[in-house]
Amino acid sequence: SRLTHLDETGRARMVDVSDKPVTAREAVAEGFVRMSPETLALALSGEGKKGDVRAVAEIAGVMAAKKTSDLIPMCHPLPVTKAEVRVEPAEGGLSVTARVKTTGRTGVEMEALTAVSVACLTLYDMLKAAEKSMVIEAVRLTEKTGGKSGDWKA
Amino acid sequence: SRLTHLDETGRARMVDVSDKPVTAREAVAEGFVRMSPETLALALSGEGKKGDVRAVAEIAGVMAAKKTSDLIPMCHPLPVTKAEVRVEPAEGGLSVTARVKTTGRTGVEMEALTAVSVACLTLYDMLKAAEKSMVIEAVRLTEKTGGKSGDWKA
Amino acid sequence: SRLTHLDETGRARMVDVSDKPVTAREAVAEGFVRMSPETLALALSGEGKKGDVRAVAEIAGVMAAKKTSDLIPMCHPLPVTKAEVRVEPAEGGLSVTARVKTTGRTGVEMEALTAVSVACLTLYDMLKAAEKSMVIEAVRLTEKTGGKSGDWKA
Amino acid sequence: SRLTHLDETGRARMVDVSDKPVTAREAVAEGFVRMSPETLALALSGEGKKGDVRAVAEIAGVMAAKKTSDLIPMCHPLPVTKAEVRVEPAEGGLSVTARVKTTGRTGVEMEALTAVSVACLTLYDMLKAAEKSMVIEAVRLTEKTGGKSGDWKA
Amino acid sequence: SRLTHLDETGRARMVDVSDKPVTAREAVAEGFVRMSPETLALALSGEGKKGDVRAVAEIAGVMAAKKTSDLIPMCHPLPVTKAEVRVEPAEGGLSVTARVKTTGRTGVEMEALTAVSVACLTLYDMLKAAEKSMVIEAVRLTEKTGGKSGDWKA
Amino acid sequence: SRLTHLDETGRARMVDVSDKPVTAREAVAEGFVRMSPETLALALSGEGKKGDVRAVAEIAGVMAAKKTSDLIPMCHPLPVTKAEVRVEPAEGGLSVTARVKTTGRTGVEMEALTAVSVACLTLYDMLKAAEKSMVIEAVRLTEKTGGKSGDWKA
Repeated sequence: SRLTHLDETGRARMVDVSDKPVTAREAVAEGFVRMSPETLALALSGEGKKGDVRAVAEIAGVMAAKKTSDLIPMCHPLPVTKAEVRVEPAEGGLSVTARVKTTGRTGVEMEALTAVSVACLTLYDMLKAAEKSMVIEAVRLTEKTGGKSGDWKA
Repeated sequence: SRLTHLDETGRARMVDVSDKPVTAREAVAEGFVRMSPETLALALSGEGKKGDVRAVAEIAGVMAAKKTSDLIPMCHPLPVTKAEVRVEPAEGGLSVTARVKTTGRTGVEMEALTAVSVACLTLYDMLKAAEKSMVIEAVRLTEKTGGKSGDWKA
Repeated sequence: SRLTHLDETGRARMVDVSDKPVTAREAVAEGFVRMSPETLALALSGEGKKGDVRAVAEIAGVMAAKKTSDLIPMCHPLPVTKAEVRVEPAEGGLSVTARVKTTGRTGVEMEALTAVSVACLTLYDMLKAAEKSMVIEAVRLTEKTGGKSGDWKA
Repeated sequence: SRLTHLDETGRARMVDVSDKPVTAREAVAEGFVRMSPETLALALSGEGKKGDVRAVAEIAGVMAAKKTSDLIPMCHPLPVTKAEVRVEPAEGGLSVTARVKTTGRTGVEMEALTAVSVACLTLYDMLKAAEKSMVIEAVRLTEKTGGKSGDWKA
Repeated sequence: SRLTHLDETGRARMVDVSDKPVTAREAVAEGFVRMSPETLALALSGEGKKGDVRAVAEIAGVMAAKKTSDLIPMCHPLPVTKAEVRVEPAEGGLSVTARVKTTGRTGVEMEALTAVSVACLTLYDMLKAAEKSMVIEAVRLTEKTGGKSGDWKA
Repeated sequence: SRLTHLDETGRARMVDVSDKPVTAREAVAEGFVRMSPETLALALSGEGKKGDVRAVAEIAGVMAAKKTSDLIPMCHPLPVTKAEVRVEPAEGGLSVTARVKTTGRTGVEMEALTAVSVACLTLYDMLKAAEKSMVIEAVRLTEKTGGKSGDWKA
């Protein structure tokens, strides 16, 4: 097995995708910010007002999806055609899901994972005054469709 | 308790730090990319050559530290005076540590966490051809020094 | 009527344009920076030399058109195929026009409006030493062609 | 009178502020997005849910304040220490106010005006599906404090 | 002969490429960082360890290729489909080569030249503690294929 | 001798400058774009009109100075307090000079060299329709003042 982002001498490169067909692609990723019940209650109490903790994280995630190739050195730039990030309360913290689509030569796995990571970081930033020991967990790809390697589900 | 990034009506703002003193600050954060033994072996096999999987992730992490306030909406821009990201092999995957310093009005917790997250995402990107089911785990602050709230250790 | 950038629960998303056809699109936008006759004379006096007040604003507008999706959270990234910004003297100030084209899945209205806004801000910056009370006015779309919603004129 | 952003031959430069003292500075700017009563009602109807039209614009404005020196060619980079953008309903449309602070060598007028402009553009983007003929109006500085030129009010 | 980036009155614009066909394109560029034998030995001594001087420059070059249209005012944004930067020791210094591909409406000459320039600047940055008098030389296009103007070789 | 951007095992890091004093610093860098007499005449013919070839390059150089730490991986972010780029006709081509100042913990050598490089790239872009074989030459630091290592002249 070979890593495509390295050449035969082990040096990094942005792999050539010029000859790949342009196809519709989608990726879904998830993550979780673990926090104390008090912090979670605080995060959700905004709900009665404007819910900005969650809104700020969702918006930051969408914007980050568009910056993926600027952050990940060997990642190809892609025209994102849809990005949606949702933060939902869950047992022990806040759960984040990102759904990203493109019509392009490579998949949007990195875009979805980057959106989730930055949304999680934003939740941490918005809540860190209450708890520094929050943990970002389980950031992973859950689904991808389209492209030569076909559909995949975690 | 109140979240400083929200005003009294629950709307987001970048909180006023104008009157905080400029002090030396440091933060250390960690994260982990869990992967199969085969993927880990592949990641490390580059070592015999040039180790670019780890090098690319470390460099991406340092560059991301400098982009933190561009990614996290309510985060203050800070002049990073040091950033070091290290990827090390560990049981079940690759461990990432970031150490960031500044001399400024707010801490560099978000910079350290962002560096770790982007280094983890970069490892995922470099290795995803081998394994899509890798998981980014345990991204958390482990230490901070300086600032009004004083020193803190996880 | 529904706002496409919000989902059914009112939360923000970058709407899915994956199934829209790729077509040629153009948008024209305008704006105006109102200023005193003295400031206008000063802005134009550069003309005898190199006219850099206008040139700086025109160049800043073109560059801003390319940053639109980085600035506007729910805006899709688009490959701009033409951008032209013109600053012209007018009664009571400087008038700005931007003309932007793409071949893509969504229109370039936001790109044209962003180019105009940043050109106006740049004029303000270049001239503010002379007059702080300048006003940016009448930033609006004047024309768009292409796309499913068809042609439109203000 | 001379424009400081041009040298003696009329060519652009980022003027030297090295010898200016570091002082506390604040700027307030305003703008307005004129729209039909129907569009305004639609923008506000989100309120019953999550108010995301306003939230997205406020967040975009804060993030844009941090990008000011990247957008405006001759503008000095500044460490923003506070940024707050508020969108409020008004007669005939939505009113935007930005309040920005720094402790630095130059003022934050451009940061406040940029925050307002990008918040207005974001409102346009969020509402354009309902009305293309909205107009961004009256973007102007209303107040500045600090710096050698002293306090100023529109 | 006319310069396409200027209009008939000599003012700058991003030229209209909307009607150009989308074709496969490639460009190769080169550059050189001249340095003393001692500095060159120092740069290469990392080889026994991890070769990070060269690796950092190669990665910076790839990332810069993706930022070309953000740096060069009248340059069209393009979806880079491949980017590879190589730093090699040569007589009197380090030689840099960049190879960039796209499938688009304009060529990637500027992307290849920008990748080379930023890789050279990064080498300077990594080595400047040892020698400030290094010189970046001979940055030039060596080859381009595809597009209406056809193939070209230096 | 040791390279400060590498740690003891040869891995890259942004070196710690936290304890360096904040001092006034300046750097001057130069570069040259070699071209045929015909291309040079074409570049200068704009002079009779608006001289935009030179103006676009000068503005691009100033903007690039502010992006230096975003381009050069191990470079510290610095508050640029002055940036001036000048393009002048010379024997065989166009000569570029950049002068950058800061008051900070590290020098602005990289900012001056980056401004020169991007101005040269912009000249190439503006003129490449006339001549693809132009060469960017002699990009080097000519002077630096301030900082612990003191003044230096090429």
